[in-house]
Amino acid sequence: MRYSKLFGKTTKTVSNDIKMTSHKLLVQAGFIRESTAGRYFMLPLGIRVQQKIMAIIKEEMDKAGAQEMITPVLHPLELWKETNRNNAAGFELMKITDRRGADFALGGTAEEMFVDVVRKFPLSYKDLPFNVYQFSQKFRDELRARGGLLRVREFMMKDAYSFDLDEENFKKEYEKMWKTYKKIFQRLGYETKVVESDNGYIGGEYCHEFVVENENGETKFLETEDGSYCAHEEVAKFQLENINLDEEEKPFTIIDQPEWVHTMEDNFKHYGKPAQFFLKNVVSRNFQGDIVIATIRGDLEINPIKLQHVLHEVIPLQPATEEDLAAIGSKTGYVHSWGHKMQTKRKAKTEERDCKVIYVADLSLKTVRNFVGGQKEEITDSTNVNYDRDFKHEIEGDIALAKEGYTAINGQKLIAKKGIEVGNIFQLGYHYSHLMSGATFTDQDGSQKPYYMGCYGIGIGRNLQTIIEMHHDEKGIIWPQAVAPYQVHLVELRSKDSDSNKADEIYQKLQEAGVEVLYDDRNDISAGQKFADADLIGCPVRLVVSSRNGDKIEWKKRDGKEIELIEFEKVVERLLI
Amino acid sequence: MRYSKLFGKTTKTVSNDIKMTSHKLLVQAGFIRESTAGRYFMLPLGIRVQQKIMAIIKEEMDKAGAQEMITPVLHPLELWKETNRNNAAGFELMKITDRRGADFALGGTAEEMFVDVVRKFPLSYKDLPFNVYQFSQKFRDELRARGGLLRVREFMMKDAYSFDLDEENFKKEYEKMWKTYKKIFQRLGYETKVVESDNGYIGGEYCHEFVVENENGETKFLETEDGSYCAHEEVAKFQLENINLDEEEKPFTIIDQPEWVHTMEDNFKHYGKPAQFFLKNVVSRNFQGDIVIATIRGDLEINPIKLQHVLHEVIPLQPATEEDLAAIGSKTGYVHSWGHKMQTKRKAKTEERDCKVIYVADLSLKTVRNFVGGQKEEITDSTNVNYDRDFKHEIEGDIALAKEGYTAINGQKLIAKKGIEVGNIFQLGYHYSHLMSGATFTDQDGSQKPYYMGCYGIGIGRNLQTIIEMHHDEKGIIWPQAVAPYQVHLVELRSKDSDSNKADEIYQKLQEAGVEVLYDDRNDISAGQKFADADLIGCPVRLVVSSRNGDKIEWKKRDGKEIELIEFEKVVERLLI
Repeated sequence: MRYSKLFGKTTKTVSNDIKMTSHKLLVQAGFIRESTAGRYFMLPLGIRVQQKIMAIIKEEMDKAGAQEMITPVLHPLELWKETNRNNAAGFELMKITDRRGADFALGGTAEEMFVDVVRKFPLSYKDLPFNVYQFSQKFRDELRARGGLLRVREFMMKDAYSFDLDEENFKKEYEKMWKTYKKIFQRLGYETKVVESDNGYIGGEYCHEFVVENENGETKFLETEDGSYCAHEEVAKFQLENINLDEEEKPFTIIDQPEWVHTMEDNFKHYGKPAQFFLKNVVSRNFQGDIVIATIRGDLEINPIKLQHVLHEVIPLQPATEEDLAAIGSKTGYVHSWGHKMQTKRKAKTEERDCKVIYVADLSLKTVRNFVGGQKEEITDSTNVNYDRDFKHEIEGDIALAKEGYTAINGQKLIAKKGIEVGNIFQLGYHYSHLMSGATFTDQDGSQKPYYMGCYGIGIGRNLQTIIEMHHDEKGIIWPQAVAPYQVHLVELRSKDSDSNKADEIYQKLQEAGVEVLYDDRNDISAGQKFADADLIGCPVRLVVSSRNGDKIEWKKRDGKEIELIEFEKVVERLLI
Repeated sequence: MRYSKLFGKTTKTVSNDIKMTSHKLLVQAGFIRESTAGRYFMLPLGIRVQQKIMAIIKEEMDKAGAQEMITPVLHPLELWKETNRNNAAGFELMKITDRRGADFALGGTAEEMFVDVVRKFPLSYKDLPFNVYQFSQKFRDELRARGGLLRVREFMMKDAYSFDLDEENFKKEYEKMWKTYKKIFQRLGYETKVVESDNGYIGGEYCHEFVVENENGETKFLETEDGSYCAHEEVAKFQLENINLDEEEKPFTIIDQPEWVHTMEDNFKHYGKPAQFFLKNVVSRNFQGDIVIATIRGDLEINPIKLQHVLHEVIPLQPATEEDLAAIGSKTGYVHSWGHKMQTKRKAKTEERDCKVIYVADLSLKTVRNFVGGQKEEITDSTNVNYDRDFKHEIEGDIALAKEGYTAINGQKLIAKKGIEVGNIFQLGYHYSHLMSGATFTDQDGSQKPYYMGCYGIGIGRNLQTIIEMHHDEKGIIWPQAVAPYQVHLVELRSKDSDSNKADEIYQKLQEAGVEVLYDDRNDISAGQKFADADLIGCPVRLVVSSRNGDKIEWKKRDGKEIELIEFEKVVERLLI
């Protein structure tokens, strides 16, 4: 490709809103441009990298026996209704109606569509197992797009769906995909951690994220030193230590408090006790409008995802507003760990009933005797409060957020890490085949059985940018060879009075030899600018043809410092290794 | 690929709604399945063909110097407003609003998007020309989907956009794309006619469709025997012969008519004259609600596309209803060729005015003296009516439909033909660069100039099905080698007591030799069924491994009859030619 005619050249000015280096480099070097927030044009350089990433994924998926196909982007909304996901994923699902009144969802993930096409065929046990995948444009109505290609509203994704006879067979497929993913990411240029994670609205019982450790990533996870436990912050478990269970239970007492005692910190100061001896309440509102009061040991924090799961809510909880607090006759700082009821009548959003107050107790409440707090009023509070004796909630569970330093379930200390999620795999089990009618195969005995499913996703743009995040220096991108837009960046340096076309010849010959070349043939650009552009764009090898060097060509690797003068034949030889 | 594990096997039952052979074969052979009307799953066999078609297109586009990139599927609606296309294309444009209230169109064609990304870069004359293209999913809210992949609501399309300094340079690009398209379609297995056509809502001054002649196609076009004139029915021109201009003009007269004279045929009978001596009126309604009366010579028909263009309407006209006729004080069969005015007041749809009656005269009215008709009442009509003398309309133009047998502008007779449109190329000129601000480049003299554009489309699924329409027999598909899903269909015939794995070995060896093989390894299927499936699926070569044949392999080409027994080495040799 002649750089003079390339659409999408380098630029010096980049919006101040762009914070992440990899995002900045993508824009500066001419790989992407934003259309509207979270929707990107892939420019000619960008699409070359995208296609190489897709080819690697395809190669590994095919090797693992998966079969490529493709589903429409517009999914009949009735399919999402079959699995109740039109509400669960409602917050990021885009819906559209055609001119004949048919409703569709813009595909964000395609479990229903794949089950729908599979159930169009009469399947026998002999047809199983199989794994089908597609590369297709996905849509997520994200509230905030950010980090360039890391969190977008529209993106190319490889999503695969496996269909197995039973759990045992599925586990082999899951392991195969696990290994396939590891290999794909290695070929893309990075090692990944496999992190237990939350399945969001996908369904199923367990799933894993593949995460590249990186300070700028938005995935927070916790790992033990030996790596034998590794889990996303949203699901990470830890061991609760008993604080003072040997202490005797003292009588429940309402005590006076100075007026200045409001916050947790005020309490620590006033009572001279550390956080774990206090009761803490966190108030949220669920989709129906019920008020959820989660009570936890004062030194711990609520994990909203765990709380959501304990409540079997499909839609994330929202933090309570002052209005919500008023509705239970309370206000910030004065929420009780028991006893609140709705004071203002409120209708549930979609159910035929009134809203209610739901209390949830974290298991940590069972590790302390004689809590302070729980019934805060203007100048009084309760003390010597004991869970099970003075209050008890129907709903109990692990709703605590794990943190660095806590003890993991394997006995080691948790270490907090950050990274970029580059792929994920989900066990779906019978979730979809139970919800969707006709999602069965004929077994050996002639009976109809639901198939056991899994699904497996990789976002392409996300990986494209992660490669840069992991491979760059202060001058620009350093593409790993496997995904570089071109293998060679050929620079012509021509003295003003020369009309030599030596670089043109080299360009021609390299192409004939099957080398991908980006050829900077511009004649009104300084050598310095050409070199800066080559470093910014980041092709693995830079070749310079200059009248000063006679028949030899300057060879420099993007990730090295050494400059060599070598013969053309030697150049080709090195490139075709 | 082992057929036993292939997702998407052959089927015998196909819906009666499927009429076209190519459509039927796609379903029967397991290449596609319908999701909802006009939206298709591409099954593993189908996507392989689709990818081969795309690879051929990509190769030829790249050879012609075009650069691949990609735009988002959701286009900001404000871009379509910049070019007034949100109304023009309104009838098939799907619109969606995200949860933050931003409006988008689902891309059906991407002129605005490409201009939008191009104008993000400061372009100089040195950057031009360039041609950028994408493969992306397109959406059209078609009222009726039909013919399988021929008319769908969602499809993969290659769309290219060229940016040139001026018309002269553009013409070279247009010619280059013309040749590139010819070559692409030859590689896909068919010859194409290049047909002058209407640009619909794309804009610009001229365009051409590439059409594969086929009786089942929905494109009607007219061609002269030597092929020097070839145009879509919608735009085809023809020479008007003067009928009786040597006749003297007689005095305009209102004459009595028997009550039974209503239709054109009644008139021919009553007056004993052929159709061309009568005035014919066709009534339509435009987008605003105005009534359009088009008057034409009785032997000709109105071409609604030509009529639309003469009126500069962007949205197609609709046939008038009885209500429309009543609004001008008329009814079916009693429309006058002059003089109607609105009797019922009606507001224009989007403009601040009342609706009106618009008369349009076809040029054929100037070829006849002393017309019969034009002022039909219950038992009277006018006769000896002369255009220009007795009535004349402000709007005159060629609004007549060309037909077989008419004389083309090159003097030869037009022949009516049918075909399938497989691609099209459009001159856009300055249409978009004038309407969209900042769509300019800096010329040598430092001034800002709009670029001169063209666009070029190929629908992939449409071509996929056309290949089958052109290459099949009563047994199934006959894929041309260049686009076959697999080169070889390997059939294993195993006697019941044999546990030979010879076919497995051949399968393995063929793959190692780089041959694409579909391997029918099913062990509970008869030889007859396996052969029928092989013929239906249509891979170019069928190989049979059978214990009866010893070490030799049965070779049969799908498009031939001869069966040969040859050595494995010979098989590989033939396949790798």
